[in-house]
Amino acid sequence: MQEILNQIEQEVTPLVGTGTVAQYIPALAEVDPHQFGIAVIDKRGEVFHAGNALKSFSIQSISKLFSLTMAIQIYDDSLWDKVGREPSGQAFNSLIQLELEHGVPRNPFINAGAIRVNDLLVSRLSTPKQRIKELLWGMSGNESIISNRRIANSEFKHSARNAAMAYLMKSFGNFENDVNIVLDNYFHACAIEMNCVDMAKCFSFLANQGVSVATGKKVVSQRQSKQLNALLVTSGLYDQAGDFAYKVGMPGKSGVGGGIVAVIPNECTVCVWSPALNKNGNSLAGSKALELFTSYLGKSIF
Amino acid sequence: MQEILNQIEQEVTPLVGTGTVAQYIPALAEVDPHQFGIAVIDKRGEVFHAGNALKSFSIQSISKLFSLTMAIQIYDDSLWDKVGREPSGQAFNSLIQLELEHGVPRNPFINAGAIRVNDLLVSRLSTPKQRIKELLWGMSGNESIISNRRIANSEFKHSARNAAMAYLMKSFGNFENDVNIVLDNYFHACAIEMNCVDMAKCFSFLANQGVSVATGKKVVSQRQSKQLNALLVTSGLYDQAGDFAYKVGMPGKSGVGGGIVAVIPNECTVCVWSPALNKNGNSLAGSKALELFTSYLGKSIF
Amino acid sequence: MQEILNQIEQEVTPLVGTGTVAQYIPALAEVDPHQFGIAVIDKRGEVFHAGNALKSFSIQSISKLFSLTMAIQIYDDSLWDKVGREPSGQAFNSLIQLELEHGVPRNPFINAGAIRVNDLLVSRLSTPKQRIKELLWGMSGNESIISNRRIANSEFKHSARNAAMAYLMKSFGNFENDVNIVLDNYFHACAIEMNCVDMAKCFSFLANQGVSVATGKKVVSQRQSKQLNALLVTSGLYDQAGDFAYKVGMPGKSGVGGGIVAVIPNECTVCVWSPALNKNGNSLAGSKALELFTSYLGKSIF
Amino acid sequence: MQEILNQIEQEVTPLVGTGTVAQYIPALAEVDPHQFGIAVIDKRGEVFHAGNALKSFSIQSISKLFSLTMAIQIYDDSLWDKVGREPSGQAFNSLIQLELEHGVPRNPFINAGAIRVNDLLVSRLSTPKQRIKELLWGMSGNESIISNRRIANSEFKHSARNAAMAYLMKSFGNFENDVNIVLDNYFHACAIEMNCVDMAKCFSFLANQGVSVATGKKVVSQRQSKQLNALLVTSGLYDQAGDFAYKVGMPGKSGVGGGIVAVIPNECTVCVWSPALNKNGNSLAGSKALELFTSYLGKSIF
Repeated sequence: MQEILNQIEQEVTPLVGTGTVAQYIPALAEVDPHQFGIAVIDKRGEVFHAGNALKSFSIQSISKLFSLTMAIQIYDDSLWDKVGREPSGQAFNSLIQLELEHGVPRNPFINAGAIRVNDLLVSRLSTPKQRIKELLWGMSGNESIISNRRIANSEFKHSARNAAMAYLMKSFGNFENDVNIVLDNYFHACAIEMNCVDMAKCFSFLANQGVSVATGKKVVSQRQSKQLNALLVTSGLYDQAGDFAYKVGMPGKSGVGGGIVAVIPNECTVCVWSPALNKNGNSLAGSKALELFTSYLGKSIF
Repeated sequence: MQEILNQIEQEVTPLVGTGTVAQYIPALAEVDPHQFGIAVIDKRGEVFHAGNALKSFSIQSISKLFSLTMAIQIYDDSLWDKVGREPSGQAFNSLIQLELEHGVPRNPFINAGAIRVNDLLVSRLSTPKQRIKELLWGMSGNESIISNRRIANSEFKHSARNAAMAYLMKSFGNFENDVNIVLDNYFHACAIEMNCVDMAKCFSFLANQGVSVATGKKVVSQRQSKQLNALLVTSGLYDQAGDFAYKVGMPGKSGVGGGIVAVIPNECTVCVWSPALNKNGNSLAGSKALELFTSYLGKSIF
Repeated sequence: MQEILNQIEQEVTPLVGTGTVAQYIPALAEVDPHQFGIAVIDKRGEVFHAGNALKSFSIQSISKLFSLTMAIQIYDDSLWDKVGREPSGQAFNSLIQLELEHGVPRNPFINAGAIRVNDLLVSRLSTPKQRIKELLWGMSGNESIISNRRIANSEFKHSARNAAMAYLMKSFGNFENDVNIVLDNYFHACAIEMNCVDMAKCFSFLANQGVSVATGKKVVSQRQSKQLNALLVTSGLYDQAGDFAYKVGMPGKSGVGGGIVAVIPNECTVCVWSPALNKNGNSLAGSKALELFTSYLGKSIF
Repeated sequence: MQEILNQIEQEVTPLVGTGTVAQYIPALAEVDPHQFGIAVIDKRGEVFHAGNALKSFSIQSISKLFSLTMAIQIYDDSLWDKVGREPSGQAFNSLIQLELEHGVPRNPFINAGAIRVNDLLVSRLSTPKQRIKELLWGMSGNESIISNRRIANSEFKHSARNAAMAYLMKSFGNFENDVNIVLDNYFHACAIEMNCVDMAKCFSFLANQGVSVATGKKVVSQRQSKQLNALLVTSGLYDQAGDFAYKVGMPGKSGVGGGIVAVIPNECTVCVWSPALNKNGNSLAGSKALELFTSYLGKSIF
């Protein structure tokens, strides 16, 4: 496995830095694009990594998977009355579909869906920001993971479209709390910073029927773990879900910070990071690295 | 395996006949809804079946997977310049998305995409109707498989919306042949009649890296086989793709005739059939049977 | 003229109270639907009226025409960079069109357009609420006209969809002020209460090339007056603009409080009021009264 | 009046030829853009003209007004069950709105509406092509008016989008005849060639309560004449209807051949022609000429 990671790091080197770093948040735009990290945790709990796998990055939309995990723990299947689980087929922040479908977001990974999931967390948790950090601390074993307040504030200032979606859901009766409070929680989660190794540990439960390989603790049920993987395959990579399934063949979730976490059920969890993005907003070198990973490993879900 | 199928048949019996048989084509509306069949072919080529697994049914949209298989054999990756491979997030016959995306259908399993795939076959094959039958005969070993002319004609008469989609693609320069000729081929394929056993044999290559388990012949490359499975997971069940992935966890393709074919890569291919449909237009008892199948087998792709 | 009004009052009596009073605001839902008033001011300044023409009603969307008048006084043609002047062809509160057209509302009479106009007033006026009342007091000669705070507050509480539109415009860079402040001003204007006679006086300038018949003062230029009438014809009655032009043939503006103000340029200004609405949200008896009015007068713009 | 026309011709000279001649039909693209004509017929039947007012041009979408006139003669108000009369707010050939509104076109001047009107004519007339020519011959007094077969054929070849709209209406049950036959009639009408003088004569009935000033014959009823003018104001100039009402203040209909016909009810009918178009597809010099016309005449409907 270590050899595979070294080989991948070497092969993607020419790609690292090509593409575009996310520009809409100053703090993200400043990140050096010439970085690449990869980490794997296998089913025995052994961790392998290469490159900048211990350097923290802004997890951004990968936080949607953390929020969803918490929401599934709390709501189980009753969650799906409030958020759909079908792929979207439209840009991740489109209001058209949300209006045509009467304020019920298509899935928890488009922005509207993730905001609704945060709304549901705010309804049930007294300190949701603290709780999500505790979840990460517990799953990774690293209690130094925090959210970057400067990035969270910066995102909050540019959140007009997200506010529009929240108010649209509210107008259809599918939103419970004050929009600003929910957005504040949402951006706090987006601005969390982690490294590849911790991220792979956190989601090791998805490759192990719901039980964390890193900690041995049950995070979600076996059934819920399968559900999460199914959702990731159909909807985890925005408008590149089909292409990613096609080329990589792993359930996965990406963020505009350049991270992607992906899973081969019953085998391993991988996290890659490289800040420069392709036109779909997913890490360019990271996508390629995962394609090589399933290719060298000779394993994918298909 | 045989015991599992018997058990499934018994369990779904109360559901068989509940739901609605497709009404828009008289010949389909007449089918007795109280029928159920299931057939499995495993990786050694052994076939198991239960219920009405040897009775022919109208394959309808499952034909889209046959057409796509032929188109991939001919065009390989150049196919994806003409048809997308992303999930649709809209009804299978929506024109709105087709217009917003300038006449390029989202994937080969929505109607517009399947019609475009047929258009591409018409461009390259002198007798496409004959060729698709030969493909089925070869893959199933059953040369008595034919298309039901009465059903094909009936569908052609009610094809205004399909014609609208074809002309819309033409208006964007993404259509090559006469619309009527292409629709004639498309409906001919939809009206093919097969039984569960033959269907499972035909698609045994998807569970065996592109090589048919039934005949030992290579149908598509290993890479193409993975691509097809990836497409089936994200887009094979219309607007129920997410729900099906979530509950069943198999790549699959359904038709309004009540058939569903599904795959566990490197394990087996299953075909179920029961004519009464759920509100998404997929076989109600068939969906349940596949859910039980992965459950009893303890295997899914997630 | 007085005979015509009497005749109209008599003829519409069987219709008064049929239809539905606006339900979404409690204070509006309580209004007795069995009321009807009509007032006319001709080009010599003579006023005629019949029925409950001196009873105040909630002007609601007719306030959009007051706001627009103020905005045109301040911005003149530069206004049209921020708001379109084309008919909408969609429900007055649709977000789909607003997103497809990148946050520029189609015209100042759909909600998004009226909110943007209020945003522009907030940018230039230190006390916009006071200023709009002064405009009405000056044009009508009645300084007792006020806004109903209870109704304004009630509308503000149900303003999620309006907030969604404001934030969507903001996300496209076409919004300048705090959303809540603008909505507060917008609902304050909607909740103004006036009677038919005062309303007809206020808009007498539209029938007199921009100069108020009631006060003799110039409100807008001759060119601006024509522009306002043109906008009213194409966009003044929501999704019934075509039908109203077709049957009535007058530029006009309606509100869900049951008022409609309409103009025959160079002839007269009419205001009708009756609280029960047709399915398009316009006063049912009021629409009929205006149809009879142009019919009996033998005059329309066509 | 003659002086006004001379003055207008002189003033628009610098604009004549600026803009773009319609390119999608070769025969139209070849027309010399440096041409301008204007003709007026007043309420006493006196005709004035200037420039190339006797040169024939391709009437294109102005034919929609002829078809609508015939359809109103035959169907009267029952027509409006099949075609709407509200402005569209979308491009003249959009399918999105047609799908959202279940196959009922918004008005008779967008392509879908005009095609449906032609469909209704085909249902009732045995030789619709001949009948429309006879209508024009009778109204203009010029029996040499014909349709240009080369242009009609050329348009038919590029009619995929129009066919898509026709089939979409058919799929909603709002289309009666063979699509090709209807499109053949539609393009035959579009390809009719007339000069400004004949055009003004033809539509002189719109300025005279339904009775042709040129022939003294009743074309439509007084009520129908008003209805047509109302429709022209709200929907006659595609996506520029609001702007045209605003600047010109006359009911009017334009075509991509560069012609515009417009009316001041009870005053006069005007036809202008100049082939180069503005970005909305309306004659650039022609629009300006009509703006000057109402300005110099001191009359408009507002």
